[in-house]
Amino acid sequence: MRSAAPQNKRSAEIAITIPPWMSRTLDGVAEFEPYASSEERMAFVVELSRENIAQGTGGPFAAAVFDAGSGRLIAAGVNMVTRLGLSIAHAEIVALAQAQALLGGFDLGGGGMPNCELVSSAEPCAMCLGAIPWSGVRSLVCGARDEDARAVGFDEGAKREDWVEGLEARGIAVRRDVLRESAAAVLREYAAMGGPVYNGRKG
Amino acid sequence: MRSAAPQNKRSAEIAITIPPWMSRTLDGVAEFEPYASSEERMAFVVELSRENIAQGTGGPFAAAVFDAGSGRLIAAGVNMVTRLGLSIAHAEIVALAQAQALLGGFDLGGGGMPNCELVSSAEPCAMCLGAIPWSGVRSLVCGARDEDARAVGFDEGAKREDWVEGLEARGIAVRRDVLRESAAAVLREYAAMGGPVYNGRKG
Repeated sequence: MRSAAPQNKRSAEIAITIPPWMSRTLDGVAEFEPYASSEERMAFVVELSRENIAQGTGGPFAAAVFDAGSGRLIAAGVNMVTRLGLSIAHAEIVALAQAQALLGGFDLGGGGMPNCELVSSAEPCAMCLGAIPWSGVRSLVCGARDEDARAVGFDEGAKREDWVEGLEARGIAVRRDVLRESAAAVLREYAAMGGPVYNGRKG
Repeated sequence: MRSAAPQNKRSAEIAITIPPWMSRTLDGVAEFEPYASSEERMAFVVELSRENIAQGTGGPFAAAVFDAGSGRLIAAGVNMVTRLGLSIAHAEIVALAQAQALLGGFDLGGGGMPNCELVSSAEPCAMCLGAIPWSGVRSLVCGARDEDARAVGFDEGAKREDWVEGLEARGIAVRRDVLRESAAAVLREYAAMGGPVYNGRKG
């Protein structure tokens, strides 16, 4: 008689883990190396987005969480949609989850937390935008604009027109266009080399 | 001489794993047990949301992915924000990620995939709404309305007024108010017992 062992697995172990090259890069940043300005933080993030292409570990997007007070790097993420096989694995989602895991709480704006700033190589898509208020970060710094991502074929989703004002009304300061050209250049390089542009279906 | 071992860890292992009681519940569903109607699927999901409170593993929200053709249960998620310490761990995000991990791809609408339907005990917040088009699901079924969640203190985020039309324009069919009263009752029970309502900061 055959056993009644389940044929049909309905739960999976899912690990949101950054690529090895990126762990090495982050470990190489000195503990008290300050990224004093938004431009220095963005330059680091844009370099991660470029390296994510070079290493073949995902799309041309990166993000990081910094302590806006000291300039200390807390955590970072890159797009890992194809590598992990997970559509949620956008750079901002990964960076926010990494920061929360490292700092030990789902609210980065809670008591005892540093003043967390999310720096993203591109303006957040609709999903990542929705994730930002739940994360507890106090500020958002963006490089490339939505239209730069759309120009090379990426879908940013259905965002409200007033998304910047919406974040600011929740106490999250927004700064746009920081090293925009440098960040947008990575998107264009990715498109020019024929990197896969996965998107939501249009029906 | 002390070694120069890094003091400052900047990457974490993050596991998106459902609670043990839930794995047992899902394993207990017969392989070919069909959930033929949206109401049957929602009844299963609402029961998960209630059990998530009873077991103390998270907020009063659940979601599941079904094969809309056969009615087969593919994967499920519950809110695990407090349990995992991750603000992204909403029920829909967990269910979509679980389905992608189990079916082996980031696009649930891709070739060879079943006709995936996301059934959620409540209308999606702004983050989960943004995640839906990237997931590849072909339809969304909702129980409680945004206003039911807001009535007990949950923040749904800044959604576009035309979010239903927006999904449908992308080929994602939306059905609302399926067992709405039953789903909303779980939200009220949670509030009445004083369950924690974590939210984005308002500034």
